[in-house]
Amino acid sequence: MELAKQFRNMINKMRAYEYVFSVLGWDSNTEAPRESHQLRAEVMGVLSKELFAMQTSKEYQDVVNQLIDQVDSLDDLLAREVKKAKKNLDKVVNVPESEYVEYMKLVQLSQLVWEDAKENNDYDSFKGNLEQLIEFNKKFALYYAPDKDPYDTLLDEYEDGMTTKEYDAFFGQLKEELVPFVREVLQKTNNQYDHFINDTFNAKKQEEYCDYLIDVIKFDRNRGLMKKSVHPFTWNTSPQDVRFTTRYLENYVFSSIFAAIHELGHATYEQQISTEFDGTLLSGGTSMGIHESQSRFYENTIGRSLEFWQAHLGKFKEIFPHQTQKIEPEDMFKAVNKVEASLIRVEADELTYPMHIMLRYEIERLLMSGTVSVDELPKLWDNKMEEYLGIRPANNSEGVLQDVHWSGGMFGYFPTYALGSAYSAQIYYAMQKDLDLSQLILNNQLEEVNAWLKEKIHKYGSSKTPKEILLEVTGEEFNPKYYIQYLKDKYTKLYL
Amino acid sequence: MELAKQFRNMINKMRAYEYVFSVLGWDSNTEAPRESHQLRAEVMGVLSKELFAMQTSKEYQDVVNQLIDQVDSLDDLLAREVKKAKKNLDKVVNVPESEYVEYMKLVQLSQLVWEDAKENNDYDSFKGNLEQLIEFNKKFALYYAPDKDPYDTLLDEYEDGMTTKEYDAFFGQLKEELVPFVREVLQKTNNQYDHFINDTFNAKKQEEYCDYLIDVIKFDRNRGLMKKSVHPFTWNTSPQDVRFTTRYLENYVFSSIFAAIHELGHATYEQQISTEFDGTLLSGGTSMGIHESQSRFYENTIGRSLEFWQAHLGKFKEIFPHQTQKIEPEDMFKAVNKVEASLIRVEADELTYPMHIMLRYEIERLLMSGTVSVDELPKLWDNKMEEYLGIRPANNSEGVLQDVHWSGGMFGYFPTYALGSAYSAQIYYAMQKDLDLSQLILNNQLEEVNAWLKEKIHKYGSSKTPKEILLEVTGEEFNPKYYIQYLKDKYTKLYL
Repeated sequence: MELAKQFRNMINKMRAYEYVFSVLGWDSNTEAPRESHQLRAEVMGVLSKELFAMQTSKEYQDVVNQLIDQVDSLDDLLAREVKKAKKNLDKVVNVPESEYVEYMKLVQLSQLVWEDAKENNDYDSFKGNLEQLIEFNKKFALYYAPDKDPYDTLLDEYEDGMTTKEYDAFFGQLKEELVPFVREVLQKTNNQYDHFINDTFNAKKQEEYCDYLIDVIKFDRNRGLMKKSVHPFTWNTSPQDVRFTTRYLENYVFSSIFAAIHELGHATYEQQISTEFDGTLLSGGTSMGIHESQSRFYENTIGRSLEFWQAHLGKFKEIFPHQTQKIEPEDMFKAVNKVEASLIRVEADELTYPMHIMLRYEIERLLMSGTVSVDELPKLWDNKMEEYLGIRPANNSEGVLQDVHWSGGMFGYFPTYALGSAYSAQIYYAMQKDLDLSQLILNNQLEEVNAWLKEKIHKYGSSKTPKEILLEVTGEEFNPKYYIQYLKDKYTKLYL
Repeated sequence: MELAKQFRNMINKMRAYEYVFSVLGWDSNTEAPRESHQLRAEVMGVLSKELFAMQTSKEYQDVVNQLIDQVDSLDDLLAREVKKAKKNLDKVVNVPESEYVEYMKLVQLSQLVWEDAKENNDYDSFKGNLEQLIEFNKKFALYYAPDKDPYDTLLDEYEDGMTTKEYDAFFGQLKEELVPFVREVLQKTNNQYDHFINDTFNAKKQEEYCDYLIDVIKFDRNRGLMKKSVHPFTWNTSPQDVRFTTRYLENYVFSSIFAAIHELGHATYEQQISTEFDGTLLSGGTSMGIHESQSRFYENTIGRSLEFWQAHLGKFKEIFPHQTQKIEPEDMFKAVNKVEASLIRVEADELTYPMHIMLRYEIERLLMSGTVSVDELPKLWDNKMEEYLGIRPANNSEGVLQDVHWSGGMFGYFPTYALGSAYSAQIYYAMQKDLDLSQLILNNQLEEVNAWLKEKIHKYGSSKTPKEILLEVTGEEFNPKYYIQYLKDKYTKLYL
């Protein structure tokens, strides 16, 4: 079929450019010298113009629209791909080019403004940009779907099929059941292991341990690698090339370890996607939420389990004999699960983490509906922080200014973090019907866990929606009760 | 001027693609996972087609040809750039596209065939490819310059202005004056330091010492970095981004050290080029020969001097206390200048190195003129080896099959290695009139050496030809006598 072939060729060419942007980004985020940025930006300018021209060309639009007209007669995979292409296309072509260019400039500028504002604790210098970013996002959402709540459109963009209706129900339940539980646990936590947790661990030796973890997770080194960067992340261009980073803080060894396991979760997902989707729009993980469910599963369900430390404390003690003299697996289990009310999302523990997300979701909802202005934002933030975690930021840098997302124009992204954790719990209970996870962790047999996840989730790439995957894997639709149950079980045993 | 602006835009766009190929190459040669190669090859296929279309487009040809017609009225830098563009263009457009495609396939294939042939010591499996590569190169040279000796055309391609006439004179002098001297020195060398040279040095600690050398050479870390790779090399996209690699052999510590200093020579050259040439065809070092003169100067004249080890043995002893207990700077000086008749070019010492190049030049000359067939090649190689160094390869893998160049279609490249060393000596004697090099090395003041080289050579990038640079820096044309004098002085003191 000629049309499908044209479509494939066009996608192929665009993906070559996207591949290039990926590699330049990887280079830039992991090692490129400081002063190399300008030339890279110029090159990306030249190439993104080329790519944009392809993405919006009359030729490409014609092919996509002709395929959409006959989408019911296409085979299932191609039909899904074409629908995805159409959705992407509609998002781009409905925005007037001048507004798009203006918005891209605003985003670039806002990131610098935000960096300075955070550095100098100067929210006022950023709020004008924030207001514009919100307005642009609303406007673009309305271009795409004039009849829908703009926040619904944005939420769906980051997690296919999710809207305020679902998230309201989800966060409503968390608020009702988790907030009191968190309060209770927080009263019982202590500083028993703080000296150990913040002891000095040589960075090179931490690297040696993280390298060991690669093999624990059974990550394929022929199709990936680990490196370091300021902010840990996973990167991939195909299942044959999946890379991740971690970071080394000499006075907080858990940072490198759990960032590594978290990213190994993302990375294992990407490595296990079927190669049949290579070069199509169905390659890569299906959504932010499902991706985060995998990273959180490896990090928390596996990495913060007692069995994990029964199996892998030995190697840790071998590398760090002095710091671990009195540490047994049970100590490690407690230390890595320390709960604490803290101000910074990225440093939050597993239990208080969803509180940080709930707060952001509620605020985004109010911002997008125009109920709250950017002027009222800092106070609102601090009040909610006090309400959910009982602590108040001393300044906006550790409050409303802490995250990069809004300065990058990302509204609707945060909720996927909590959603991922909740998916993860629901998947965990389904997995328990087939596997004895504790035993597999204890026996260092994670290849069996990988195989189960590959068969149920990973191999499908983006060829199934998050909702389809969840339904097929767990036999029911998304249900937050598993998440609440998982957290209550785990932290009751640990603290109550 | 409209035409110049069009030219600039076109060059700019093509350079964006070249930048991308550079970054993909760097990634591939330093860290990319083994199985990532296929997708990268596909992407490069897509993008090189785009680039080739630009490079050979009617539009671009028109602009270049129109500028060439009025080249005498252009300002000097633009005129030089346009002439360069015209030369590049003529090389591409005179070759029929089908032949070009066929040749590119042959090169790709030949590299694999060569790898196997070398691995299996099977010259016969490679000689057919070699013969075809030679024929293509001859043919292409004749398309470009029908009236010239093809080898002259190829030599000029790697070193502007050099032909068999100059090289015959150069290698003739080497043969006459150096061959007997080398024989004499070889009789006096001994194995006094072999135990130390081949002692075990931990790779991570070698890396620490090489990192120290970055600061010794005063290389700017904000505009570059060091990494490791199988074959050391220097890489750059602009003076703001210059990277190099070294390699770590645990039983031969000099490999990492002198590869690092050698590449730091290349890298310092690139970092010191004036940014006014950024984005033009005048950016980057001017030629293979001048580049090699810089790397060899840092490696041999600086790095293998007594003063260097008077200044930097201390740090080496600090990192390797056990292996260096009885080693004084004079010992190090002798150890790093050990002369030995050896079969492999890349492992040859400074004195015997030009013998390896002379041999290759003489053979290429015979191959290109058709005087010698590929069948006769192995024996010819071995005979010449015996003539110049008194040793005979036991097999073709350590003889005629050892280098990658010919399998990559590079004929005329080798001579630039020896030429670079000879340039280096001529520049060294000129430098001595302005600087007390020994004292500067001893005082760890290489910034003054860098500054001299920047002012005389580096800052000009490719805006001057090798011949212009040599004449301006040394006051005379290329003269091999300095090289011969330098080697005789140094090795007479060391051995005779």
